[in-house]
Amino acid sequence: VLTELLPHCLSSADLRGKVLIFPQESATAYVSLIPSVKKPLQNFTLCLKSFTDLNRAYSLFSYSTRSRDNELLLFIEKTGEYQLSIGNAGVNFKVPPLPYNPRHICVSWESASGIAEFWIDGKPLGRKGVRKGYTVGAEAKIILGQEQDSFGGNFDAKQSFVGEIWDVSLWDYVLPLKDMCDYSDGGNVLNWQALTYEENGYVVTKPSLWN
Amino acid sequence: VLTELLPHCLSSADLRGKVLIFPQESATAYVSLIPSVKKPLQNFTLCLKSFTDLNRAYSLFSYSTRSRDNELLLFIEKTGEYQLSIGNAGVNFKVPPLPYNPRHICVSWESASGIAEFWIDGKPLGRKGVRKGYTVGAEAKIILGQEQDSFGGNFDAKQSFVGEIWDVSLWDYVLPLKDMCDYSDGGNVLNWQALTYEENGYVVTKPSLWN
Amino acid sequence: VLTELLPHCLSSADLRGKVLIFPQESATAYVSLIPSVKKPLQNFTLCLKSFTDLNRAYSLFSYSTRSRDNELLLFIEKTGEYQLSIGNAGVNFKVPPLPYNPRHICVSWESASGIAEFWIDGKPLGRKGVRKGYTVGAEAKIILGQEQDSFGGNFDAKQSFVGEIWDVSLWDYVLPLKDMCDYSDGGNVLNWQALTYEENGYVVTKPSLWN
Amino acid sequence: VLTELLPHCLSSADLRGKVLIFPQESATAYVSLIPSVKKPLQNFTLCLKSFTDLNRAYSLFSYSTRSRDNELLLFIEKTGEYQLSIGNAGVNFKVPPLPYNPRHICVSWESASGIAEFWIDGKPLGRKGVRKGYTVGAEAKIILGQEQDSFGGNFDAKQSFVGEIWDVSLWDYVLPLKDMCDYSDGGNVLNWQALTYEENGYVVTKPSLWN
Amino acid sequence: VLTELLPHCLSSADLRGKVLIFPQESATAYVSLIPSVKKPLQNFTLCLKSFTDLNRAYSLFSYSTRSRDNELLLFIEKTGEYQLSIGNAGVNFKVPPLPYNPRHICVSWESASGIAEFWIDGKPLGRKGVRKGYTVGAEAKIILGQEQDSFGGNFDAKQSFVGEIWDVSLWDYVLPLKDMCDYSDGGNVLNWQALTYEENGYVVTKPSLWN
Repeated sequence: VLTELLPHCLSSADLRGKVLIFPQESATAYVSLIPSVKKPLQNFTLCLKSFTDLNRAYSLFSYSTRSRDNELLLFIEKTGEYQLSIGNAGVNFKVPPLPYNPRHICVSWESASGIAEFWIDGKPLGRKGVRKGYTVGAEAKIILGQEQDSFGGNFDAKQSFVGEIWDVSLWDYVLPLKDMCDYSDGGNVLNWQALTYEENGYVVTKPSLWN
Repeated sequence: VLTELLPHCLSSADLRGKVLIFPQESATAYVSLIPSVKKPLQNFTLCLKSFTDLNRAYSLFSYSTRSRDNELLLFIEKTGEYQLSIGNAGVNFKVPPLPYNPRHICVSWESASGIAEFWIDGKPLGRKGVRKGYTVGAEAKIILGQEQDSFGGNFDAKQSFVGEIWDVSLWDYVLPLKDMCDYSDGGNVLNWQALTYEENGYVVTKPSLWN
Repeated sequence: VLTELLPHCLSSADLRGKVLIFPQESATAYVSLIPSVKKPLQNFTLCLKSFTDLNRAYSLFSYSTRSRDNELLLFIEKTGEYQLSIGNAGVNFKVPPLPYNPRHICVSWESASGIAEFWIDGKPLGRKGVRKGYTVGAEAKIILGQEQDSFGGNFDAKQSFVGEIWDVSLWDYVLPLKDMCDYSDGGNVLNWQALTYEENGYVVTKPSLWN
Repeated sequence: VLTELLPHCLSSADLRGKVLIFPQESATAYVSLIPSVKKPLQNFTLCLKSFTDLNRAYSLFSYSTRSRDNELLLFIEKTGEYQLSIGNAGVNFKVPPLPYNPRHICVSWESASGIAEFWIDGKPLGRKGVRKGYTVGAEAKIILGQEQDSFGGNFDAKQSFVGEIWDVSLWDYVLPLKDMCDYSDGGNVLNWQALTYEENGYVVTKPSLWN
Repeated sequence: VLTELLPHCLSSADLRGKVLIFPQESATAYVSLIPSVKKPLQNFTLCLKSFTDLNRAYSLFSYSTRSRDNELLLFIEKTGEYQLSIGNAGVNFKVPPLPYNPRHICVSWESASGIAEFWIDGKPLGRKGVRKGYTVGAEAKIILGQEQDSFGGNFDAKQSFVGEIWDVSLWDYVLPLKDMCDYSDGGNVLNWQALTYEENGYVVTKPSLWN
């Protein structure tokens, strides 16, 4: 029913058990995610799973506004070093390398304290401070597969994601990540079980190979 | 019965529990496999097991047509890096090294999406895109032990396989590789339990050392 | 009750289950700890837990007097090398690296023998001799987060702690560290369950992520 | 009884549970093994156990004839690389290093196919081809501890064995090495339980330290 | 009772559960051990336990006579390489490194065969030949903590031991080291349960941290 009301290029679907494959390096393949609510974020929790064999820098989640392209960005700088940017300011988290395996990443941020908290595969990797008091803008382009160097575009193939992404969830509050395994219901801003999205370029949807 | 009808240089046999040994580096030892059906492939699944101590590049499975020598090629570029070529275009998969042990490799490809999927030893190593929409030609030379640089020949000893290969199977459709362990019945295009093949040069058939 | 009697910048609290987060590199963020008794120390036991991803030098516990800035200092020189200084003289202990994990550190010192004993994560790392016969001065500034190069100040951002510290305990006697896991009651000089402290700069208190 | 009939320098003994120790590097210490039958070999299986901390090249089993000093030679070229020579032609097997431990080595060779098969510590390391159709000469000097560069002599201290060797067995046929653990009865050509041998230079017989 | 009869600088004690700590690098701290019997040794077994974080050369047990300073010396040349000297002639044993842990070392020597046997942490590391036919002199200075470059002196701080030593035992015969764990009763020449010794310089006796 909802699908009928969407512009023809948008899909809305329950993607449980499905992944988005970015099969090749390019500056053209990406997926736009449409949030179910549009509101400024003073807190958030972002979770996703990914598989890749890249050993260069790449973007996992790019949330850009007109004023700031790195408004909320989850970026891998190099193997074992993840960067979370809020309002163009970044903090880094060191992550134990685990090649040949999918990763389960969760990160939360709280404006009041500026504390960003990072978990991988159910293991905490500490907390850092970034952009205390800031508010993440509401009018955003949310893109998987590419890193936005301007609002909704200006992609660089050398920062593109090649591999598989799934179970993307975004909440507008801070979740206790200690129990992150239980968040099967998905976020109230982005929800893999009821996702509105637009595929662009060479993107393929397939069942997940990992449980 | 079938054997009597074959040209004298061809064998047809149930090779269950047997391996083909390529005992020395050469440009002359190889085994031609004769498919049970000859048809263009828009999908396929290829599985095989191998043991080798090579640490140079070598070919595992070379399927060549008159127009393209790398029509369907499974090639190891270096330790830990496998290449699948379709219609002369290649995608690479990174594989955890496991020296001193046999490997069980499965790869499938689907023309409609271009998605190639790679598994090793029961573990998925992701999916990449290659030659979307392509059709693998039917009139092919299928060769183990050598890499064809032209149709059925032009071998290079430095790309030859030295070691043991067994349980080669080829299907003309995409199998769910999650359950690859169960495919003991063999492929409908190439089937180790009813294989028609021709040995050339120094090749030895022996019982497998591994279960 | 006690809180009412303290200067307005001091807190006194039961921090059980809580950690002090130093969210960013700085020369301004630190926590002053106020001992419950002020006395010269001829013996002590110091325990604390920490999480960090620093791979430069940093201070874990800086106890300074007017005459000696390194009166009692627990310092990490580089990954895997801890230094305990008593009265400006240092001994080093080599520690098995365990990145991505919190560490539980205990160190004791006995003036009569000069023996300093070091444990990490419940494992002894030997004993060394330092400052036999010395007495650690009573009038001290005790600081987490920064290394004092003069009494109560002269901080260097490049030696600052970034990460989380908790369960800091100081006793004025030598405890048998073999049973260190059991010391949940906290020290008689510094006690995490009844800690008087002053936060300065960007410091955040949060529940611990690790048990 | 047999012992009385032997030349005075020869021993014949049941060496079960005993090892030959070559205690020092030299060009003079070695043990000659006298086969219970003297016949040309078109097939053989050779098993032995050894302990050493050498990290240079050394000989494990040197079987030389008047015409060829490397008639049947088991040689370690460097850590992790074993060489089997038949009639002066060699094939190499790569072996997982396992320092500080004894190794159990078995190798077989079949003239009809030229296939040499190598096992270490109960694990197969593949098959290679060497000297297909060849016959290993019967009139041989079989020597442990030194590598013969001419018939029965011309030793090089830098290829000598230093360490311990035991449970040497030689059969004149190919055994299925999958079950090598069970061959406790010893070979029909050389048999540790009834070995005729001559010690030369500094060689010591002692009980084994390993079961 | 015995203690009363000793010169004032000597102690005689049951050191079960106790260790000798050498707290700092020096050329002055050492412990002289007085054997309960003084006799030339044609066989011996020496066991001891130690903990250190040194990664330079150091002496573990120095037994010197007027004519030979390395009459019986257990020396670590570098991490993973132990040297046993008998009558100034040395043999080396390679030992798996195990930093951050105490080591249990046993070595025996038999004059008749010259065979020295080395065990670490209950694991045999082979046998080597040294000084066959030799007799270790009776009139000796036995020193822990320093390496004697002349009879009872000439110490070099750069070869001194820093760390902890305990459970030193010396027997005048060869023990089967396979069962070394059971030798809790101590040696008949040196016995930790009834040790006569003299501490010199900065040496501290404390309970062991390891069982």
